[in-house]
Amino acid sequence: MTQQISIFDTTLRDGTQGEGISLSADDKIKIAQKLDTLGVHYIEGGNPGSNSKDIEFFKRVKSLQLRAKITAFGSTRRKNSIAEHDASLLRIVESGVPAATLVGKSWDFHVHTALQTTLEENLSMIADSFAFLKRNGMEAIYDAEHFFDGYKHNPEYAIAALRSAQDAGADWIVLCDTNGGTLPGEIQEIVTRVRQELTAPIGIHTHNDCELAVANTLAAVSAGARQVQGTINGYGERCGNANLCSIIPNLQIKMNYQCIETEQLVQLTNVARYVSEIANVHMPVNQAYVGNAAFAHKGGIHVSAILKDSKTYEHIAPELVGNKQRILVSELAGQSNIISKAQELGLDIHSNNEKTKQIIDKIKELEHQGYQFEGADASLELLLREAFGEYKEIFKLESFKMLVEKSNGKMVSEAIVKINVDGETVYTAAEGNGPVNALDNALRKALVQFYPRIMDVHLSDYKVRVFDEIDATAAKVRVLIESTDFNNTWSTVGVSSNIIEASWQALVDSIRYALLNSAKQENSGNDQRERLGLINH
Amino acid sequence: MTQQISIFDTTLRDGTQGEGISLSADDKIKIAQKLDTLGVHYIEGGNPGSNSKDIEFFKRVKSLQLRAKITAFGSTRRKNSIAEHDASLLRIVESGVPAATLVGKSWDFHVHTALQTTLEENLSMIADSFAFLKRNGMEAIYDAEHFFDGYKHNPEYAIAALRSAQDAGADWIVLCDTNGGTLPGEIQEIVTRVRQELTAPIGIHTHNDCELAVANTLAAVSAGARQVQGTINGYGERCGNANLCSIIPNLQIKMNYQCIETEQLVQLTNVARYVSEIANVHMPVNQAYVGNAAFAHKGGIHVSAILKDSKTYEHIAPELVGNKQRILVSELAGQSNIISKAQELGLDIHSNNEKTKQIIDKIKELEHQGYQFEGADASLELLLREAFGEYKEIFKLESFKMLVEKSNGKMVSEAIVKINVDGETVYTAAEGNGPVNALDNALRKALVQFYPRIMDVHLSDYKVRVFDEIDATAAKVRVLIESTDFNNTWSTVGVSSNIIEASWQALVDSIRYALLNSAKQENSGNDQRERLGLINH
Repeated sequence: MTQQISIFDTTLRDGTQGEGISLSADDKIKIAQKLDTLGVHYIEGGNPGSNSKDIEFFKRVKSLQLRAKITAFGSTRRKNSIAEHDASLLRIVESGVPAATLVGKSWDFHVHTALQTTLEENLSMIADSFAFLKRNGMEAIYDAEHFFDGYKHNPEYAIAALRSAQDAGADWIVLCDTNGGTLPGEIQEIVTRVRQELTAPIGIHTHNDCELAVANTLAAVSAGARQVQGTINGYGERCGNANLCSIIPNLQIKMNYQCIETEQLVQLTNVARYVSEIANVHMPVNQAYVGNAAFAHKGGIHVSAILKDSKTYEHIAPELVGNKQRILVSELAGQSNIISKAQELGLDIHSNNEKTKQIIDKIKELEHQGYQFEGADASLELLLREAFGEYKEIFKLESFKMLVEKSNGKMVSEAIVKINVDGETVYTAAEGNGPVNALDNALRKALVQFYPRIMDVHLSDYKVRVFDEIDATAAKVRVLIESTDFNNTWSTVGVSSNIIEASWQALVDSIRYALLNSAKQENSGNDQRERLGLINH
Repeated sequence: MTQQISIFDTTLRDGTQGEGISLSADDKIKIAQKLDTLGVHYIEGGNPGSNSKDIEFFKRVKSLQLRAKITAFGSTRRKNSIAEHDASLLRIVESGVPAATLVGKSWDFHVHTALQTTLEENLSMIADSFAFLKRNGMEAIYDAEHFFDGYKHNPEYAIAALRSAQDAGADWIVLCDTNGGTLPGEIQEIVTRVRQELTAPIGIHTHNDCELAVANTLAAVSAGARQVQGTINGYGERCGNANLCSIIPNLQIKMNYQCIETEQLVQLTNVARYVSEIANVHMPVNQAYVGNAAFAHKGGIHVSAILKDSKTYEHIAPELVGNKQRILVSELAGQSNIISKAQELGLDIHSNNEKTKQIIDKIKELEHQGYQFEGADASLELLLREAFGEYKEIFKLESFKMLVEKSNGKMVSEAIVKINVDGETVYTAAEGNGPVNALDNALRKALVQFYPRIMDVHLSDYKVRVFDEIDATAAKVRVLIESTDFNNTWSTVGVSSNIIEASWQALVDSIRYALLNSAKQENSGNDQRERLGLINH
């Protein structure tokens, strides 16, 4: 029989302890809604006792009527006081959530060093606080901070701390590897031992300081833990919390536990990327399951095998987690990668081997200059279509001029663009919030009379990478631009020692691609199709 | 007795299969030298049979006389041929390395699908190839591709493949989890079984598709594997290879195996960061052991405890791996983080609580606008010193103007800067490779007569982050600049909706900090010290 595992998401609380992560109440609301589509069982929203942003979140989230249980976080009562007078516990009750997690000490060293109180008082702090939550009708979860370290130093006391919570009515006892220093074998052994001592259901909360948080969580579940605490993308203090984006598919696809519904699992990649956007943290391309490179194939031999049978180099079907296979084009690849990309575009590549070689040589030369097509599919497509005569130039740049001025504390950015469209010279000027915006505005102003759809296109991301880092402002820069017309998203690249020139290249590619795409999609745009040279589509 | 584990680094071979990673022969030489200081036992340089860059590497690396064994990579001979005529095997021998790794099939499905040959022919391919290497006097390592998947489908055949290599003289049998889909428990069980069947020493090679590569490697070592293959920072195809930067400290500090010398382990952080620089891949701040946030503390409660005893929230002493503790300043932190930072700078912060509150409020307000001080220590230091009256402004900007022009395919960037130094107006103009370089040149030209040391400062990295991603070129951008004067490295931040303005802010902070620092360090610069207002230092 498939065992159910309860998923407790703490992205909004422990996740925000990560370096560079800061979420507004608004961000938290958006993420909570997204988490609910994934089907996590608990969403820990924050600490109503410590900041007003979290109080606002708890107020607003109520009206959303999410399926997940919203939980508040706090600590056991202060030493030498009573729970009924503890401001932080009172705030939790006032926040109106159905469930709360209280962190408490279980390592004697911490009781002495951090709390600076007696072992007995700590046990009373735990017991009083849980009794208080239960009297207030709440589901109550005990986060036993530093439990594994505590157990290794003083197992009797560590277990006694858990018992205090259990006996006071705690619904879950969650064992925390707060410092992230424990190994999977130890976790398995200690969880097994705890299960013999307690009757309450056990949860696990690990950190990634040894790059073992996922393995430690799986080990605890194997030993009988039934609640898993973690964050989306493993955000969290220092090296992060256990990454739910890896844990959920591991438990569900590989270990036959039930966490969320199969249709919800398909949302995983989308949820992971959405949260990284809101948190404004770039997702490493190589992140397990949900990363952009998680099912990307670069080596020439691998690619030929993958094209024969994707099981050869893929451990699961990427669609199970909503991700997809990608064939990367790079100098390491044999011809097979480029051929497969061209075939995907419907280009007749087999018939002309000399041309294929020329294209590969050109791509290698551009990569040598610093272009990177792995992250710029649209620029690559333009390059391939041009090589096959399937695309003709929309316009020719004659010149651009860009002026940025700061005077009396005021910034002005202006661009002047001179282009030639079908023999007609167009000369425009525009202002912008910055130089790239000014250029973008001037270029679109010049093109809009020929291609009205250009106004639907917006830049959605702009990345700059300096790649000869010895002397940065004089070095080469690569600009990657991501654009969207609300239906599609595409990426383009530009390289130059001048950031404005590199941005210009990526901008132009983005617009060329947008027009190509809209011409392909709309049958009505015959005039535009002809202009773009889309002869056989 | 402490068991020795052999560390086999494949950053230069399997690592380069990672998306966005491309190393020149020169890069490979630099990384090999660095790896040698870490004391890895094998450095796999590449595949001499597949590309000329790797042949150049093998030629050049010989003269370096590294302590590590340099190894070449290739495949077992082609089907229906003989090893002596196999171009790829011949290249390996010609490369003159003392050791080689050959990858071969052990999963019957792959023999049929990818190789398209018989099971018997595959065994002969393995046996012939290893006999060939041994006849040529080389140490020979068998990489059993897809071994765990193969074993799960057809254990007899998978073991027979290993035996072919062993019986032909292979010195190591390395079990590969090529697709990265195996779990630690399975790894442990299968490695245990293999050890019962074979006499040759066993190695392990895992991939991170389930975020379990490190755990899988540790499980294999626990079951008796004595060679560990991996890459620095876990670079590699898809989700990457097993990360040696986590495996080595886990094995050595936590599990009592001997990998490298204690003094070499202290190089770990430096090696990891150096390789990420050369590979031009940004290291995630939260990377275990070696990341910039691996021992960074943000939560207010954690910080107060850490200041009492660092063991409270650190699983090891960061110095063991050459990393260090950092206290982050952010809205989540209580006053304790900022106080601790100010104390680090020798500022008298305890005596004036109202001032402390003002500073914290100012930092919160700036963070709200998008500044991030976690990655810009120098800007934070300037802010704190200013608040304590320990720093006075070097110059005042009156205006700058920046012109970028493209005409006839030629780019020109010019900047004009007007500043005021001690009442004197200085007006300069300069060209540059790009706008930021032009601004940097013009500003330094204006300042050099007052501060000659300004010419030692170089920008070493330049990062741009767009953070309202809805409409990128019109959104706010954060620029982080890293600068160096060859003795020190520091980071500064600027935020604006205009990339030029944001760059300017970070540039100015960088120069202010450089002058402050050089004034602190040099007693001779009394005139400069006075100008900077360093009254009590």
